[in-house]
Formats: sequence, structure tokens, C-alpha cells
Amino acid sequence: MSEKETEISELGEFGLIDRLTKDFPLKNPETKLGVGDDAAVLTFGEKDVVVTTDLLLEGIHFDLRYVPLQHLGYKSAIVNFSDIYAMGATPRQITVSIGVSSRFTVEHIETLYSGIRRACEVYGVDLVGGDTSASVTGLVISITCIGDVAKGEEVRRTGAKPTDIICVSGDLGAAFMGLQLLERENSVAAGQKDFQPDFAGKEYILERQLKPEARRDIVELLKQKDIKPTSMIDVSDGLSSELLHICKESNVGCRVYEDKLPIDYQTALMAEEFNMNLVTAAMNGGEDYELLFTVPLTDHEKVEKMEGVKMIGYVTEPTLGAALVTRDGGEIPIKAQGWNAFNH
Amino acid sequence: MSEKETEISELGEFGLIDRLTKDFPLKNPETKLGVGDDAAVLTFGEKDVVVTTDLLLEGIHFDLRYVPLQHLGYKSAIVNFSDIYAMGATPRQITVSIGVSSRFTVEHIETLYSGIRRACEVYGVDLVGGDTSASVTGLVISITCIGDVAKGEEVRRTGAKPTDIICVSGDLGAAFMGLQLLERENSVAAGQKDFQPDFAGKEYILERQLKPEARRDIVELLKQKDIKPTSMIDVSDGLSSELLHICKESNVGCRVYEDKLPIDYQTALMAEEFNMNLVTAAMNGGEDYELLFTVPLTDHEKVEKMEGVKMIGYVTEPTLGAALVTRDGGEIPIKAQGWNAFNH
Repeated sequence: MSEKETEISELGEFGLIDRLTKDFPLKNPETKLGVGDDAAVLTFGEKDVVVTTDLLLEGIHFDLRYVPLQHLGYKSAIVNFSDIYAMGATPRQITVSIGVSSRFTVEHIETLYSGIRRACEVYGVDLVGGDTSASVTGLVISITCIGDVAKGEEVRRTGAKPTDIICVSGDLGAAFMGLQLLERENSVAAGQKDFQPDFAGKEYILERQLKPEARRDIVELLKQKDIKPTSMIDVSDGLSSELLHICKESNVGCRVYEDKLPIDYQTALMAEEFNMNLVTAAMNGGEDYELLFTVPLTDHEKVEKMEGVKMIGYVTEPTLGAALVTRDGGEIPIKAQGWNAFNH
Repeated sequence: MSEKETEISELGEFGLIDRLTKDFPLKNPETKLGVGDDAAVLTFGEKDVVVTTDLLLEGIHFDLRYVPLQHLGYKSAIVNFSDIYAMGATPRQITVSIGVSSRFTVEHIETLYSGIRRACEVYGVDLVGGDTSASVTGLVISITCIGDVAKGEEVRRTGAKPTDIICVSGDLGAAFMGLQLLERENSVAAGQKDFQPDFAGKEYILERQLKPEARRDIVELLKQKDIKPTSMIDVSDGLSSELLHICKESNVGCRVYEDKLPIDYQTALMAEEFNMNLVTAAMNGGEDYELLFTVPLTDHEKVEKMEGVKMIGYVTEPTLGAALVTRDGGEIPIKAQGWNAFNH
């Protein structure tokens, strides 16, 4: 800790909350009362309310040796916004609870919050509450996000029907390859003084890992084009895992084409450098925060024209199961090999 | 781990969530969609929505050497319900996120959830979401509670006016003395095989610490008697701390009478046994989860007749500050000495 830094115990819990939350002006008319009472008060009128929550733990979900605190704050908020968009809803409020061990100063936590604030600014979300506490070891971040959606307009995972087209936004596997790169550079750096990792030409995969975005644009585009997906989910644990969720919840099967998977050039190069299977990275890497959704066959022309969306397969009868159709026409059953915190 | 127990990694994250949440039937018509999608969907019509959140960390907020997991689950839910009642609102839904280290089995977590389920049953609350994760060390519990209140009927901390009567429900200091007792017995037990602590005659203070309740009954009674408090807060960090919150947020002062503080007989006995100052325990002990509220002087007769509520003082002009009036008529300035996680 440098001389300019402040120990959290100097401020105490309420002092810390005041300092962290003072730069979060409320933006939404749906927020009647923010931080500072026993609970926040929100007013949605006739709209429905959607709620999601995520718990992020140091040493499990993030490694502060190579994740800057500001990016961590940004990403912690984004992963929640992404879940709200995956319901076809709009995020409006978040609560942020943090547990911090004594190695963190007030300035560290302010840096974390500056990332959360930036995400709230970009996505128009209000910080309305939270909790701060000491922790015995490491950093704990728990965020709950609340959003709204016109009554009955939420998009669940349950409505996919055979012959529906399966679509995914953006590209897949980049965040995973970015993580591989960061972990390699970190282990190379260990013990080497003044080591400077070379990230030239790899900016995209790093950004996908460190500073992902939520696909608000896709949800807005779907509304503009009057497309209501029959099911939707965000890709956090990997495409395979999310496809299986939709298949299970909608009681359907699916076929997804290997040669239709959207993969960025940098992702492919990095997989080659690491001698990793590119399709595995795209199918199981996770942390893409893209939207996976299904639309009726009759929307084919509409989605074909949507920028940033690719049709990757179709929904089948449940008896056919979920499979990846390889380039040579073979079929590989899809299994969830996505990220599992309990096998980490 | 006994042979009958199950390692969490055997089930994986989704298997664990399925197992933990299957016995939580939805009870509220406000809950349209519970666990199992990207987000829960809630529908409140024209009512306003209130949201609160609490983060509980092992080694900071609880000690598993003497807190049974089932009680911990119950209490974790209750502390959130208490915040919702303190807004004059009704808790409807919770999300529960947990981080568990490898020393916990599936059965441990089921025991924790059985306490949460019990609290949900007693208070009519739906479990609608959450997150489960491994943790590097210890148990992490993050709960967010959502409630509703008729539009404009929420009770904030901001409305107390000079001459208002200050009221508190139940009694104070018991949970704190219960904690002292548990900590003493635990340290006596350390190293003594087959040690059996003697808790006879101390059931009340133990229950106040281990299995507190939220004061739904008081909120309902206030409505029945057509009393709308001008301010309200729940006593979690200690009466002193909560009084200062109301004074600050309402820009008022207060006088509270030492001889009016509601204190149970067991609390007093225990304080004597520990040679502790009883008033300090009542003012600063915390974890009472009682409701502290102010009402206009005109409601004097109404609150006088309210069972389980005591008038302990009155609101003053801000210039007079906050003070405790002692039995001999002296005044001691009230300072927040409540529980602070950062000085723990």
C-alpha cells in the first residue's frame, strides 16, 4: 500500500458505501429510491420484472494477477446485463455486494467500482444497493440485476420448436483463447523480472476475455425487425452447454453445423499456436456473452439480413438428440463440457 | 465425509441447483417464472418493488463451529426479509447464491437450504434464482430479496419529524448476549473431549442469536391500526447505529430513555454473568432484527396499545443531536459502536 492509499477500516462500512456510490447518478424513472435505506424502491407500472444474479469469487472466476480491477468491475456487471438481455428484457438496476480482504485498499475498491460505473453508464443501469464486508481471504463480488419487459414479452428457453432456425450473434471461442493467452503470458512472466508480454495482433481475443459486452444491440435489432425468438439464452458456459439447456427446456433436439460456427481470425490463429482444437474452443470455451436464439423457419429471410447474426443449425424432434454436423457430414453428439466451477 | 455423503463435483453446478431447488414450490402469484432460465420473471402490476441484498461470509459473519447450517440458512433469509419489512413492504422472492469450498458435501448444502426453505415457507417467499460456485476457502452466502408495497406506501428513513415518538418492537441485546455465550462455550469446549455446554435457562438468548425472526407481525399490526410510521429501519447493527441513520436521513435529533429500553430477563442475567454493561449490550449489540420506527405524536394512544411495541423516546430538532437519557437524568451522546465487518 502506498502512502496515498486508504485502509478500508479508516472509512468503515458506511463511509465506504458513501464513497463508492456517490458517483452513480440515477438515470431510470423506474428507480424511485436508490442506495441509502433498508431497500431500494422501484416502480415498473404494468411491466414485468426480471431478476438475475451472479457470484464471482477470486481464485475461481478471476485471477487478479492478470485481470485489472477496472475490467473486473465492468465484466461483473456485463455478465448480469447479458442474462437480462437473454430474456429479451432491458436491465435497469443492479445491487453490488463485495467482500474484501485486508490486502485491498479503498482505492482498489474504487477502481473496481469505476468499472461497474462505466458499465452502468454504457447500458443505462442504476446502482441501487448492495453490501460491503470484510472477507477472510480474497475478493467476493455478488451482483443482482433487475430489468423490465413488456408484459408477456419475455423470451424463455422453453419455446423452441422442431424446424426452428438456430442463430447466434457475434463469434465464439475468442474469450476462451484470450484466457489461454493471459494464462500463458502470466506463467512465462512468473520469475522473470521486467517481463513484457507481447499482445500485438491479439487485441481482439484479449478484449473478448477482459472486457466483454452484452448484446443489447441484438435485442433491439430483433424488436426493430419484429422477430420474436421462440427461445433465447446467453452463451456464458459455452455453446454446447447452452444448446443443451434449450434442448432440455424446450424438449427438442438440434443439429448445428461445424462449418457455420462463427469464429474470428484471431481465435483461429491462437488455437493453432496453442495446438488446440478450434471447434472445441468455439463449442465449449464459454464467456462469449453472445445470444443464442431460435426463430421460426418463416423468419428465415429476416434473420438472414441481420448484421452480426449467423444461422448455425436447426431444431429437431427430441428423439434425434443434439449433435454437431461435421464438415464431412458426420454427426458428433453434443455434450456439455463447458466451464464448471466445481471441477475447476 | 461419511460414505453416504456426496461430493458436489459428482453433481456439477446444474445438478446441484436442480437438487437444491426442487423442494421450493412457488407460492406467490407475483412469481411468473422461478429458477431455470437466464432470469426470473415477476409481475407486480401497479405495486412498487423493493429490493435488498446481504452478503454473509464465513469467518466474518458466522462461525460454523457453533452455528448449525440449518439455522444459518434460516437466518440468512430472515435478515433480508427484515429489511423488506422495514420498508413497510412484503417479501415475495429471494435469490440465493452460494460459494462452497471442497470441505462441504451436497448434504451440507442441502441442510443449509432446508433452513432457507423453512424461512421461505414461514414467510411465504419464493426462491426464484441464484448461483452456485466453488470457493477457495469457506462458505459465501449472498441473498437478494424482492418485495412489494402499494404505490407510495413505502416507509423510508427520511420522514421523522421533531416531537415524533420513537418506538421499537420486541427487546434488545439478547442476540448479542447469545453470541457471547456461544463464543464462551466454544472456547471452553476447545480441547475438551465430550464437552457438553450447559444452555439451560438460556434458550431465549440462544434462539435470538441462532434463529431470529423478522417482524412481519408488527408491519401487519401497524396496517391494521392504520398507523403509518414517519420512518422505519430494522435493528441489525445495534439500536445506536439505527437511531443515527434515522437522525441523519431525516435531519433530526433524538432522545431515548435508558429506563425505557426493552430488555429481556435472560439478557440481563447473562450480562451480569459476563460482567458486561447491559445498556451497552442493548444499544450496540445488534442482530436484534426488531423494527425501530417513529410515529406522529397524535398516534400516541394507538401505539401505546400495540402489543410488543415500546415507546422509548422522541424525535428532536437536529441541533440537539442524538442522546441517551440515563436513569439519573443525565445525557450521553449516542455514537455508533455497532458491528463493523471491517474492524472485526
